[in-house]
Amino acid sequence: MRTLLQALLTPRRAVQAHCDLPCGVYDPAQAKVEAESVRAIQERYQDAEKFKTEGESVEDYRARCLGIKEERADLVKHHLWVLWTDYFKPTHLEKYPQLHELFWKATKSAGEAKKAQDPKQGQQLLDLIEEISKIFWETKAA
Amino acid sequence: MRTLLQALLTPRRAVQAHCDLPCGVYDPAQAKVEAESVRAIQERYQDAEKFKTEGESVEDYRARCLGIKEERADLVKHHLWVLWTDYFKPTHLEKYPQLHELFWKATKSAGEAKKAQDPKQGQQLLDLIEEISKIFWETKAA
Amino acid sequence: MRTLLQALLTPRRAVQAHCDLPCGVYDPAQAKVEAESVRAIQERYQDAEKFKTEGESVEDYRARCLGIKEERADLVKHHLWVLWTDYFKPTHLEKYPQLHELFWKATKSAGEAKKAQDPKQGQQLLDLIEEISKIFWETKAA
Amino acid sequence: MRTLLQALLTPRRAVQAHCDLPCGVYDPAQAKVEAESVRAIQERYQDAEKFKTEGESVEDYRARCLGIKEERADLVKHHLWVLWTDYFKPTHLEKYPQLHELFWKATKSAGEAKKAQDPKQGQQLLDLIEEISKIFWETKAA
Amino acid sequence: MRTLLQALLTPRRAVQAHCDLPCGVYDPAQAKVEAESVRAIQERYQDAEKFKTEGESVEDYRARCLGIKEERADLVKHHLWVLWTDYFKPTHLEKYPQLHELFWKATKSAGEAKKAQDPKQGQQLLDLIEEISKIFWETKAA
Amino acid sequence: MRTLLQALLTPRRAVQAHCDLPCGVYDPAQAKVEAESVRAIQERYQDAEKFKTEGESVEDYRARCLGIKEERADLVKHHLWVLWTDYFKPTHLEKYPQLHELFWKATKSAGEAKKAQDPKQGQQLLDLIEEISKIFWETKAA
Repeated sequence: MRTLLQALLTPRRAVQAHCDLPCGVYDPAQAKVEAESVRAIQERYQDAEKFKTEGESVEDYRARCLGIKEERADLVKHHLWVLWTDYFKPTHLEKYPQLHELFWKATKSAGEAKKAQDPKQGQQLLDLIEEISKIFWETKAA
Repeated sequence: MRTLLQALLTPRRAVQAHCDLPCGVYDPAQAKVEAESVRAIQERYQDAEKFKTEGESVEDYRARCLGIKEERADLVKHHLWVLWTDYFKPTHLEKYPQLHELFWKATKSAGEAKKAQDPKQGQQLLDLIEEISKIFWETKAA
Repeated sequence: MRTLLQALLTPRRAVQAHCDLPCGVYDPAQAKVEAESVRAIQERYQDAEKFKTEGESVEDYRARCLGIKEERADLVKHHLWVLWTDYFKPTHLEKYPQLHELFWKATKSAGEAKKAQDPKQGQQLLDLIEEISKIFWETKAA
Repeated sequence: MRTLLQALLTPRRAVQAHCDLPCGVYDPAQAKVEAESVRAIQERYQDAEKFKTEGESVEDYRARCLGIKEERADLVKHHLWVLWTDYFKPTHLEKYPQLHELFWKATKSAGEAKKAQDPKQGQQLLDLIEEISKIFWETKAA
Repeated sequence: MRTLLQALLTPRRAVQAHCDLPCGVYDPAQAKVEAESVRAIQERYQDAEKFKTEGESVEDYRARCLGIKEERADLVKHHLWVLWTDYFKPTHLEKYPQLHELFWKATKSAGEAKKAQDPKQGQQLLDLIEEISKIFWETKAA
Repeated sequence: MRTLLQALLTPRRAVQAHCDLPCGVYDPAQAKVEAESVRAIQERYQDAEKFKTEGESVEDYRARCLGIKEERADLVKHHLWVLWTDYFKPTHLEKYPQLHELFWKATKSAGEAKKAQDPKQGQQLLDLIEEISKIFWETKAA
């Protein structure tokens, strides 16, 4: 039997994605997942001594943090761009005129994440994605 | 105010991903999202006349279905492989001895999705991912 | 000695690109180059009998057209997205308030290019990129 | 009205690319654009204190320089290889017997750019691409 | 105990690869492996009725052949280009002046493989790679 | 005339690869080649002073080692995953029940290679691939 904790930990089944067929499957979770990874890397960078593998030097661990964060931030940008261009339609924009600006800020924030080692920056990125996500799910419910 | 429908449509916030830092962020949703896309493409392939863009020939639409499905199925495989190798630990395997076989079947099923145009095949893939997902969230709750 | 024709055929030396260092090098030519390829493929699709390699069937040639166009259109989207998020700043937007809408339309047009076999569609994509390019070079000259 | 400065800053419209359809669209600008980025990164590496983002350490900035330069140099190699193999024909080689050697040197120089932090090295790479570009546009004008 | 057949079927242990560190590890096997795949696809294309999965249409199977062959041929080109630019040195060229021409032909042949459905074409590609491989192993033995 | 040394240095001709057509071409050499590169990079990291290019700092050389090793280790994982899912069949598993565990360990070892600078770690990875390779060639000979 599934416990309440399991239920809380379990994501909704009908996750959503995309492709330019279009397949009609979209989900802001794809961007969020990579942004969570960005923030986690920023935390690990700050606390490298604790997180690094035994035998790995702090310098090497941090160099790896930077390289991997670069890739993850790129994925955030990509998933957000796809959502902006492919999912949202002119009728959505009428109802949510802030959409263009919101996506612009969120993708710029993902770009800044490459330079920023502070998890607060990653949290700001996650907050912007959360705003997008809220609108997204409102349009799906409409 | 958020409606119940919105609540049902809204995914849980704390989605999870991965990287080999490791960042500790994982989520079967990444595989599921692409598998949903695979099944949606199989449905569209079957009902091409209805789904194709105006002016697009059924033949061209189906050729695009095949090409895009190939990519999406590859992503399913990739996300599952990462989960299998990077997230699951020997202690998990002790508790869930079926893990190896389950991932083998699921990734083989993703490979078959490239050849199969029947949405039932895509559903089987989704069912296998659901089994993996259930175990994954049990281990997170443990 | 360089002839006038050569001069006309020769691109300007100081072409521009990008990366999120940032390196400060950007150029709409990257999107344009791929969009020219998209339109050329649409033309070849229409006139497959003439363009296909000897021994290649028209059906196979067209299937290849579709697959390659899909990739090239993706590159157009990518280069435009990078320009929108990385190059343009809030001060540019004040002066060119149409920027968001313009990039949205252009990237949507690149997405449509995957479904469209008519070179007129590719030309519309090129026209939108030309509008972006004009603004880009005005901001560089400012 | 377009100013002279704008005219000088504006690239020629008919830029060129490639694909193995083949689409017949090629342009050395693709390699040049990435090589400009390589040289710009080498300059920023030298003057990291000035170019780095506020709050970013010089060490981290330089580590990012190295990683990004690696990618950009790879793109230079790729674009040059495509030009060499796909655009140039035996008749071109008869007229420009130096082509093989020139491309070999240029792609080797792009490989060296990964190790070299001196912008002079990047300039040598750009000079080699300029030589290729000159021949390319002569063959187009022929 | 290993049988003679096993010995014949077993590849030499010390296979070789590359990277631009450089790591000093190269091996023409990487190109050969993809070219074997190209030829195998051409054979399957010819004999689609026999090779296709049950329930898959011949048209769909062939469309998949074309798409996958495109990718494999690209990998052949990539591995050959890397070998040409990164492994071979001016001293090798003095001893094997045919190197440039040989690589040019081989990579052009890989490009043609995208259009050609005849396994004889794939065999010609493999023969050219064999010539390169022979020279490569002579230089290693020198 | 081919010398014995050449013969020893020459790999077997019929190398094997893969694709999900499936083309039926597989070869553990693809994973081995990248793992050899991983170990070579670990050796160069240890002996950076000796291996680095003149003018390159030891710090920069090592940063490049880390970045490139990350990629090569990813390729090892990919090639092994493909072999596991695509080549091996249930009948193979009956005969070699250790297959799942072996691939799990080998891909986990490739993940550890990203963090480990000790060539002994790379050798362990190579040893695991060798075990897989041995089984692979036995199944081909069967």
